[in-house]
Amino acid sequence: MDNSFKIALCQMSVEDNKEKNIKRAVDMIEKSANNGARLVILPEMFNCPYDNSKFGVYAETAGSGATIEAVSKAAKDNGAYVVAGSIPETEDNKIYNTCFIFDDNGKIIGRHRKIHLFDIDIPEKIVFRESEVLTPGSEITVVDTSFCRIGIAICYDVRFPEIFRKMALMGAEFVIVPAAFNMTTGPAHWELLIRTRAVDNQVFMAAVSPARNERASYIAYGNSMAVDPWGEILARAEEKEDILFCDIDLSKVEKVRRELPVLQHRRTDIY
Amino acid sequence: MDNSFKIALCQMSVEDNKEKNIKRAVDMIEKSANNGARLVILPEMFNCPYDNSKFGVYAETAGSGATIEAVSKAAKDNGAYVVAGSIPETEDNKIYNTCFIFDDNGKIIGRHRKIHLFDIDIPEKIVFRESEVLTPGSEITVVDTSFCRIGIAICYDVRFPEIFRKMALMGAEFVIVPAAFNMTTGPAHWELLIRTRAVDNQVFMAAVSPARNERASYIAYGNSMAVDPWGEILARAEEKEDILFCDIDLSKVEKVRRELPVLQHRRTDIY
Repeated sequence: MDNSFKIALCQMSVEDNKEKNIKRAVDMIEKSANNGARLVILPEMFNCPYDNSKFGVYAETAGSGATIEAVSKAAKDNGAYVVAGSIPETEDNKIYNTCFIFDDNGKIIGRHRKIHLFDIDIPEKIVFRESEVLTPGSEITVVDTSFCRIGIAICYDVRFPEIFRKMALMGAEFVIVPAAFNMTTGPAHWELLIRTRAVDNQVFMAAVSPARNERASYIAYGNSMAVDPWGEILARAEEKEDILFCDIDLSKVEKVRRELPVLQHRRTDIY
Repeated sequence: MDNSFKIALCQMSVEDNKEKNIKRAVDMIEKSANNGARLVILPEMFNCPYDNSKFGVYAETAGSGATIEAVSKAAKDNGAYVVAGSIPETEDNKIYNTCFIFDDNGKIIGRHRKIHLFDIDIPEKIVFRESEVLTPGSEITVVDTSFCRIGIAICYDVRFPEIFRKMALMGAEFVIVPAAFNMTTGPAHWELLIRTRAVDNQVFMAAVSPARNERASYIAYGNSMAVDPWGEILARAEEKEDILFCDIDLSKVEKVRRELPVLQHRRTDIY
């Protein structure tokens, strides 16, 4: 396995036009790979506005959708792994918020369906109820790549430390979180949660948001970031569209886990 | 139950003199109560230097020690609950890092023995091995007070999200962490972990450190702080000796849990 590899976090602008979103995603994958990225990450709902009224319209079934086909081809053409943020996925008349993971041959090697649906009601600040439209997944997801084992969680999943612990215990050294925090939860908790999941589990983390769009019904916070296993921020976007690059040096995982063996110190006799 | 109550975080200077440490703790309890605090918190190892060679010398057995007697009397005399940081406690020739909790009549209503022993080895930065001298506790601790149910963890315990989740599920609305992070782990992780445990579990947190002593073999970070269930810092000390006061308004717990019901959204079918 390679001990260090370059990744790209694509903080992409998403609009109410599927075709344009797909084209933009493909362009960003190409640009990322041309700049040396061997794993490219797209944001949550990169092909669709984050809006309950849109999920059904934009949804695709695995194996037959324009988004999945285009991303698969882009992964293969550019020889890069792609963690394809998420798209609305339909199966049996249900809609999931799903991340497909492609290897550098364009093959789907994993799928994460958001486990925790985002239902929030802070008066005069933010109201959203994913559960009105979406169905939750029920599996914790790790996938094997030629670099390391990678865990996947989507947005609100990040508030549940349980699944990050499980991913680390399943061998993940890097956890990727396509996400779209908003202007209330973002400033309050985005950096905090991403850094703590990294520190608690001594893994790399990369969290990728859509670019902020002040005209959207749901305004994403942006601030995509990559964090190392000691909790240090390696790269951080502002609110606008951007591609962040950084190196994931897996020897840091080994070093931090040797110096402060938190995972070994867990009291499995108690919890 | 009272819905709001004032607490005091005593960031106390600890020296290599048990008698002086006890006197200082008693003085700070009195000062805190005189200023309206109904619950007073002392730091980790408030009667003893944080040093493996000292724990055995300073240790007391529950029911017979000068420290416990003096704090019990101070709690009663001042009519305040005291979460007595921690002291080295002996039983059956073992030494524990133990927090005793006193009600406002001076009665011991709970005891937490540090569950996770701090063994760290970061070359040229910090080396410490509690496990060479101390024995770990094996119980997650919550105690009932006239205000609310309170959880207790000690220092390195804060790195284990599992026990904070358990305390919240056991009904804790406020978790107190006597602790002594150092000059390596403090700047890197202290605020991060305290705030995230509060946010994840939607509880108040108060973490209380000894004051920094540059001449000690182990230099505490200080920076005692109280955080609300949304992760906002209510009060924060610098490095020197200080008493912080703040109000714990329990209606905030209810509000945050209603607006973003994270604890209800847990997927107990998966983890």
